[in-house]
Amino acid sequence: MIRFENDYAEGAHPRILKRLLETNEEQTPGYGADEHCEKAKTYIRKACDIEHADIHFLVGGTQANTTIIASILRPHQGAVAAITGHIAVHEAGAIEATGHKVLTLPSDDGKIRAEQVREMVDNHWNDAAHEHMVQPGLVYISHPTENGTAYRRSELEALSKVCRESGLPLVLDGARLGYGLVSKDSEVTLADIARLCDVFYIGGTKIGALCGEAVVIVNEALKKDFRYAIKQKGGLLAKGRLLGIQFETLFEDGLYHEISSHAVEMAMMIREAFREKGFSFRYDSPTNQQFPILPNQILSELSKTYSYSLWEKFDAEHSVVRFCTTWATKKENVERLIADIKAL
Amino acid sequence: MIRFENDYAEGAHPRILKRLLETNEEQTPGYGADEHCEKAKTYIRKACDIEHADIHFLVGGTQANTTIIASILRPHQGAVAAITGHIAVHEAGAIEATGHKVLTLPSDDGKIRAEQVREMVDNHWNDAAHEHMVQPGLVYISHPTENGTAYRRSELEALSKVCRESGLPLVLDGARLGYGLVSKDSEVTLADIARLCDVFYIGGTKIGALCGEAVVIVNEALKKDFRYAIKQKGGLLAKGRLLGIQFETLFEDGLYHEISSHAVEMAMMIREAFREKGFSFRYDSPTNQQFPILPNQILSELSKTYSYSLWEKFDAEHSVVRFCTTWATKKENVERLIADIKAL
Amino acid sequence: MIRFENDYAEGAHPRILKRLLETNEEQTPGYGADEHCEKAKTYIRKACDIEHADIHFLVGGTQANTTIIASILRPHQGAVAAITGHIAVHEAGAIEATGHKVLTLPSDDGKIRAEQVREMVDNHWNDAAHEHMVQPGLVYISHPTENGTAYRRSELEALSKVCRESGLPLVLDGARLGYGLVSKDSEVTLADIARLCDVFYIGGTKIGALCGEAVVIVNEALKKDFRYAIKQKGGLLAKGRLLGIQFETLFEDGLYHEISSHAVEMAMMIREAFREKGFSFRYDSPTNQQFPILPNQILSELSKTYSYSLWEKFDAEHSVVRFCTTWATKKENVERLIADIKAL
Amino acid sequence: MIRFENDYAEGAHPRILKRLLETNEEQTPGYGADEHCEKAKTYIRKACDIEHADIHFLVGGTQANTTIIASILRPHQGAVAAITGHIAVHEAGAIEATGHKVLTLPSDDGKIRAEQVREMVDNHWNDAAHEHMVQPGLVYISHPTENGTAYRRSELEALSKVCRESGLPLVLDGARLGYGLVSKDSEVTLADIARLCDVFYIGGTKIGALCGEAVVIVNEALKKDFRYAIKQKGGLLAKGRLLGIQFETLFEDGLYHEISSHAVEMAMMIREAFREKGFSFRYDSPTNQQFPILPNQILSELSKTYSYSLWEKFDAEHSVVRFCTTWATKKENVERLIADIKAL
Repeated sequence: MIRFENDYAEGAHPRILKRLLETNEEQTPGYGADEHCEKAKTYIRKACDIEHADIHFLVGGTQANTTIIASILRPHQGAVAAITGHIAVHEAGAIEATGHKVLTLPSDDGKIRAEQVREMVDNHWNDAAHEHMVQPGLVYISHPTENGTAYRRSELEALSKVCRESGLPLVLDGARLGYGLVSKDSEVTLADIARLCDVFYIGGTKIGALCGEAVVIVNEALKKDFRYAIKQKGGLLAKGRLLGIQFETLFEDGLYHEISSHAVEMAMMIREAFREKGFSFRYDSPTNQQFPILPNQILSELSKTYSYSLWEKFDAEHSVVRFCTTWATKKENVERLIADIKAL
Repeated sequence: MIRFENDYAEGAHPRILKRLLETNEEQTPGYGADEHCEKAKTYIRKACDIEHADIHFLVGGTQANTTIIASILRPHQGAVAAITGHIAVHEAGAIEATGHKVLTLPSDDGKIRAEQVREMVDNHWNDAAHEHMVQPGLVYISHPTENGTAYRRSELEALSKVCRESGLPLVLDGARLGYGLVSKDSEVTLADIARLCDVFYIGGTKIGALCGEAVVIVNEALKKDFRYAIKQKGGLLAKGRLLGIQFETLFEDGLYHEISSHAVEMAMMIREAFREKGFSFRYDSPTNQQFPILPNQILSELSKTYSYSLWEKFDAEHSVVRFCTTWATKKENVERLIADIKAL
Repeated sequence: MIRFENDYAEGAHPRILKRLLETNEEQTPGYGADEHCEKAKTYIRKACDIEHADIHFLVGGTQANTTIIASILRPHQGAVAAITGHIAVHEAGAIEATGHKVLTLPSDDGKIRAEQVREMVDNHWNDAAHEHMVQPGLVYISHPTENGTAYRRSELEALSKVCRESGLPLVLDGARLGYGLVSKDSEVTLADIARLCDVFYIGGTKIGALCGEAVVIVNEALKKDFRYAIKQKGGLLAKGRLLGIQFETLFEDGLYHEISSHAVEMAMMIREAFREKGFSFRYDSPTNQQFPILPNQILSELSKTYSYSLWEKFDAEHSVVRFCTTWATKKENVERLIADIKAL
Repeated sequence: MIRFENDYAEGAHPRILKRLLETNEEQTPGYGADEHCEKAKTYIRKACDIEHADIHFLVGGTQANTTIIASILRPHQGAVAAITGHIAVHEAGAIEATGHKVLTLPSDDGKIRAEQVREMVDNHWNDAAHEHMVQPGLVYISHPTENGTAYRRSELEALSKVCRESGLPLVLDGARLGYGLVSKDSEVTLADIARLCDVFYIGGTKIGALCGEAVVIVNEALKKDFRYAIKQKGGLLAKGRLLGIQFETLFEDGLYHEISSHAVEMAMMIREAFREKGFSFRYDSPTNQQFPILPNQILSELSKTYSYSLWEKFDAEHSVVRFCTTWATKKENVERLIADIKAL
């Protein structure tokens, strides 16, 4: 079975494991106060072209989202998000568990638009009963989105502008950030993100690490006491070096970019093959997740050799499925898949 | 500098890293549904001599405590704990952040006694205003405690009895469990714990793993929907295998016991050296943490070669310090320390 | 100005004030342990034709909803509600503040249907990733709804059936319950509600009281420790008699029914007047709130003499407005309004 | 039976009821936007000798404490309080339910001292692991305390100074504030409190009202969005006038002072009688609650005619009991009690 069902099926990129091995006997201070964490932060600040960001390493995405959002909001505020956003759907109510509503905006492709945010904010303040309602307190977006789509720079700039005009921090969930950064369609760079967002994180788990997300706090006002927040939400690892060493390896000489590029290249090959065969896609994704709409008959054929995940029923005879690629996706396997698609 | 300041200064036991390397290319399902997690669970159930426990792997201790306690309690209930307990002092209010008070009992050595629990429970129900107060909802203990002390079997049995008579689940924090299990003073086995507690966890982070705690739910009534709780509290790793592989390695052929024994053996050597020299101890610890009370002058001498952590001021001229040992503590370094103690 | 804008513009029904005056010097135990509370409970149990319900008096609707829902749900569960439900829109995130998501169902008239609940529950359990999502934990409905509409007995029976088959308590918000009970369209009695719901409350604030809602817990499993919940949520009044005396007065000889009937009778007269004049309604309400769709020009005419509340914009030239009636609505004022409508 | 057991046994002061009656037919806007609330605020600002305080009316003390504290703190912060403080003991975990720990200081008389606060704050910041601990976020005191004792002006000034130097808002629970203000020992005025505290509330429930506490927010930084907080915690009454009318009556021409003075005068008579007879007191209370230590034999004698509440066991033969007085305490009953004490 050749697996395309998700982007977390293997362990870590070999260079990460190698580094863990090399550094294993080193004795370091705990809780992220070690030199590997420091180096990783320096590399990341440089990659973001920003001098003064605070950087913290957390284990996973739900933890990062919860810690960030609970740290920013006052009790009567909510997080504005796409109705498809990870915090709205797939975190088992983690945000609500910290006391906050997720205020959802409709979205067909996973993205939200600046005008939608402006309208929601205006509606809130124009409502005579606004004190009876949850106040928008920040805006949460994913880039790339859960549907593989990516924001264009102009879209991100427009969102950032509305957020700043409305006094709402813009929080970017970058669980798959690398795939967005290398996408050919995208003009959005790490420096753009650091410039336009207040807090964001650089996903490691789905881009070659065993685990780990690097939270970057750009907005000075949001930096205070964040380590208390991490500790309280259970995210402060005694052996914090585990995360520092991984991000050090990913960012010291371009491995993060290399992994992301490979995965997206593989995904584009798969996309092209389905497209040439005349299949359409549920979302127009320029990243490592592809969502072709396929006849069920063809799917049962493909599933003999390949695993993918079932996304949703499309109609009586078609389904939307998801093919994912990673650092570990072998070109020969992709070529075999392409040949099989052609032969359908 | 030879370091004794904590038990999380190095990476993982080499056999764990080796196994991570060997399995790295395997493709496995995510979120802990892989075979390594399954095997680890089987080994742990066997070590606990129990057939039907539910086992879940979490990343760290604060996360484990929070997830367990929030899953058990109703909103008006609190967790009974020693005033020195980790949840009462060193989790940045993680339990309160889930809505629950920690109801503290005085303790000089980190342990609580059955009679204390009974008295607190009786006082609650005998108070005419009990509906205005937080209801005791579970009992939390650490074994070994944060002070290195360990429960005797009879103490644990008495606590368990009171808890069952009062309808309170008994939750055991085993962040350093191995060190308690191998202690010569201790008669408490994993099977005892599984028999006497409702939920407990087996610490990995401080006993040779990169990270990870194995939560064992024995009480049938507390098993339901625990994976939702893990997800909500940010503890469900996409690459859950990271934890499964580590516990598989620790429990398949006695590595957990081996690591714990080595560390406690080293600690006993250090204890003996201080004792022979006439120093006394803040706590009578039979485990890997030792708390000698030393003259400040001697400390400044020792600190040229050895690191330890400052625990608390004892009097104008003495301090309580902590020496920790682990799998990575080298016998030659311990011997050198002992020689230096003798030469004081 | 003759006011129809809401149903809480005046104080209390005179018979309630009179009773407060008569009983003022009595010395009673605090926190709802007085005889007036006991009598009120007896009257309410009789009105519900149920022997063993637990009854508690709370001050307001948001408080009642929050206390009930937080008491029932486990942390990973949410409350299923209409997207227009009070808890989903107008409680400033009170439910989320206790850690729970409100899982919304679309609704055009404020009601939800049994099939919608069944579908949501089925979808949850059929989703492979359900442990990553908020689990439906109870169903919340309002009767009458925030839009004045009322459930038919068959609708309530169907909802109750789905809830019981799914293991979900059915919670009914009866902030305006009296108006539903006396509505000519309605076949739903208090006994029906007590038979079909697990917890509900009988609104006092909007039906003649100064403040107060009577929470009725029918389901045995949900009764335990509810007074702790009230205390924790700030709802346990030292002078609990204030609520007991009011509900005693409302239920000892039919005042609750009398007040409700008068208000609905007045509302039906207003409805008929608008209808005869050819206006249509945003919701088909058989209760004390009427939502005619009126030309803006006519509204500016009416607003010289009458107050109403603006509900929503309908189109460029029409608005939906709300006219409310209460015990204090004078027939002569209603007749004057009708005359003015006829003269438009 | 002549009752002294608490200060909430009767309804409201007759002038309050009279005013409710007089205003009952008035039609007013809901949710505290009525003229009575406005007038009450004006009177209270004048009594506090402060121009710009925000004032809000809540129903009860637990609700006020919870709403205030949850509105001020960030998630990792706790409320510093006496171990005997109402929020620490008698609110069923209401503060914890909003996510915050109560950080307790020892106290024998219900008061805390400036030096205790300074030491706790210093200890926090000096602890290398402070990010693993709950950060002190505000200081909560009661005046008079739960034990009847009252702060002296110098004590309050010292507390205020430490709080301001440490950046901690000082919150004063004034559930029985009037009794402190009129106490002969006290030099603390409403203006002092408004000058020295950041937020406080003026209790109504225990000083002549049916229910109600007036929250006064002096600190500009804490005013923002407080009405959202009230709504979310279930405290925004539809008929907010109920509270406004009561505080208008209490503050328009000195009724609050008059009620408080009468009660304290009665209490002083009782105190003197016990003192003359040679009995001592558990707390030295200059307010409406008296805590004599009495032989059990004498108590059983007194309990034939008088009710009081049992506070705690003192020794095998003595108990601490509480006698309370209010606006409704009749001088003739107090005189009868005194005669009976003398005759013991």
